[in-house]
Amino acid sequence: MLFNEKMYELGSKRSVIRELFEYGKEQAKTVGAENVYDFSIGNPTVEAPSIVNETIRELTMTKSSIELHGYTSAQGDEETRQAIADYLNKTYQTNFKSDNFYMTVGAAASLSICFNALTASENDEFIVIAPFFPEYKVFVEGAGAKLVVVSADEEHFQIKFDELEKKINKNTKGIIINSPNNPSGTVYTEETIKRLAELLKIKSDELGTDIFILSDEPYREIAYDGIEVPYVTKYYNNTIVCYSYSKSLSLPGERIGYILVPDEVVESKKVYAAICGAGRSLGFVCAPSMFQKVIAKCVGNTGDINIYKKNRDLLYQGLMELGYKCHKPQGAFYLFVKILGDDEEEFCRRAKDLNLLVVGATGFGCPGWVRVSYCVDEDMISRSFTAFKKLIESYK
Amino acid sequence: MLFNEKMYELGSKRSVIRELFEYGKEQAKTVGAENVYDFSIGNPTVEAPSIVNETIRELTMTKSSIELHGYTSAQGDEETRQAIADYLNKTYQTNFKSDNFYMTVGAAASLSICFNALTASENDEFIVIAPFFPEYKVFVEGAGAKLVVVSADEEHFQIKFDELEKKINKNTKGIIINSPNNPSGTVYTEETIKRLAELLKIKSDELGTDIFILSDEPYREIAYDGIEVPYVTKYYNNTIVCYSYSKSLSLPGERIGYILVPDEVVESKKVYAAICGAGRSLGFVCAPSMFQKVIAKCVGNTGDINIYKKNRDLLYQGLMELGYKCHKPQGAFYLFVKILGDDEEEFCRRAKDLNLLVVGATGFGCPGWVRVSYCVDEDMISRSFTAFKKLIESYK
Repeated sequence: MLFNEKMYELGSKRSVIRELFEYGKEQAKTVGAENVYDFSIGNPTVEAPSIVNETIRELTMTKSSIELHGYTSAQGDEETRQAIADYLNKTYQTNFKSDNFYMTVGAAASLSICFNALTASENDEFIVIAPFFPEYKVFVEGAGAKLVVVSADEEHFQIKFDELEKKINKNTKGIIINSPNNPSGTVYTEETIKRLAELLKIKSDELGTDIFILSDEPYREIAYDGIEVPYVTKYYNNTIVCYSYSKSLSLPGERIGYILVPDEVVESKKVYAAICGAGRSLGFVCAPSMFQKVIAKCVGNTGDINIYKKNRDLLYQGLMELGYKCHKPQGAFYLFVKILGDDEEEFCRRAKDLNLLVVGATGFGCPGWVRVSYCVDEDMISRSFTAFKKLIESYK
Repeated sequence: MLFNEKMYELGSKRSVIRELFEYGKEQAKTVGAENVYDFSIGNPTVEAPSIVNETIRELTMTKSSIELHGYTSAQGDEETRQAIADYLNKTYQTNFKSDNFYMTVGAAASLSICFNALTASENDEFIVIAPFFPEYKVFVEGAGAKLVVVSADEEHFQIKFDELEKKINKNTKGIIINSPNNPSGTVYTEETIKRLAELLKIKSDELGTDIFILSDEPYREIAYDGIEVPYVTKYYNNTIVCYSYSKSLSLPGERIGYILVPDEVVESKKVYAAICGAGRSLGFVCAPSMFQKVIAKCVGNTGDINIYKKNRDLLYQGLMELGYKCHKPQGAFYLFVKILGDDEEEFCRRAKDLNLLVVGATGFGCPGWVRVSYCVDEDMISRSFTAFKKLIESYK
């Protein structure tokens, strides 16, 4: 075979989300951009805080080119890792050191590296809780392991613990959690995290294995109404955190994030070394050097999250008033809406006919719902209600 | 097993080069930095051309944050890919289009993605010509294929075609070439490239397979004395080019490069799709967005390569005068020197005792030589000759 079939498939099948997004751009040419309500993509629409570009300009004026654009160590710039540790320790009363961090080219890289570092056998399984970000499957299978899905708790979008318990076995390498959640906008409560930690401790003891939590947290800072997003490492020792600045600093294209391996992780130094090795093997030499230095200066800042909150309130309230069943998001920038009728494809098609682009949640492991991304213009939300009204009326 | 053993090994074994570099830094504290002659690392020491930082500042002033730092398509910014195509077409009289390019996070990523895209069976083999960059082995094996080494032509550092011919078989997926070469500084002549193309055509026909050339070209622009570096795609259709701006623009930490799949490649659209799929599977979402825009503006510029040339002349002449046998480098920033005696380790140890840090070439697949990186301060080269003199005298 000339090339790898699986890679070809991954590269030639456009995702449903990308299809919708491209359709929206085409449709805008026909009916006018103001008449297309594209809620398909999860791209930050809030500007990066001004300190980001100020820092970039300052760095180019004050640092030598060799220092600014040169290789950092594979783990990342010491100063950057220390700044992140200091920020987390101050914010969450943790006790991390610079050596617990491995800088990465964003969250996808963080995840891919972790799965490759931890997968030791083709029998290894990672469990994910629906609804979930579909690329997890790509990364887990790319690393040679299996993805096992626990179905969604459609009432509160927390965790169905009975089902999770049944799905844990001696091959379970880790549980992937993502809170605030893409696509449901849920934040796991402290009670959920405590119960999860408790279950994993019992199961690890019972099975004689060490089960990791992989906490994928790109939306950590995007939470509303003062809700607390529990810091998972404080509840369960064997937790690895995958983080990205894509959302908090609105830098999705710059590919900058980290993996955090606390000292409390089982054989943490060896796990950290395996992460370094996986990064090396996959072709990640170091995270972009200038943006590492930007992070050292900007850690703790965020874009104006209130913009997302206003969008959430407008959209949630508007759809509830129209009679839709919605899960009120506590974080991220996605609203989960129950379909009408019992055919998700039909619902999405009818929406699309009204130029209302929403993503069916079957791809997120949660059929019967759609994801409405509200990282969009506030005006577009207001204009979209007429179409949402027509959509619900078409089911009456 | 808690983690992947192979990844652990890759992450915990420091490379010989890195060991030497760290030793040098320690030793500098004891004997003074001016008395350590560290020729171990291949880090650009020439500043990025000023247009790079000027462009960065301009972009932060003129583009919206969302546009500047947002996701690009997975293939990369259209404008950037077009600018690269235009530059290559003008410079090498080629006929590339923007769609032939896939932007990557540097050369390591380019290579890793290609090996993962092309490897279809565990029997697949990639052939490399010694001396070679040792990470090729890591990337090829990471993709599940085998690396086959053709031993070095120690006279001219071109290619031993007899040996290469014998090593091509039905499992041969591709030949990796790297010219200008790390570690020998050789540039393959047009005659070498023509002969290679001819051999691969004959072998492809004979075996009924399609053999790729993977041309790894981060040093393309670093060539001296007006020597021409043949553009490989013009000699052999089934050529994929892996490029990085690390060396030409002195941006090694920023991780920006590309993969070029010309239309002439067998099933080029499918190969390109497999490359997109491999990039996705490994966790590369897009190449850093701002630096893509920097490249669009700076393509064709380089740092001051004359600095490397002056270093080469000084070092080569100095070592020849002292009586060393050297291969005169035509490109890159490495000088290959034949050891004295017949024990490479012993030679490197004696050098190290004189605070002369050079890398034994066994790791590059070419025992009996050392690599001397001359991307260093000119002054350090001048100061080092006393130590080089003592080293050669110790063998008399």
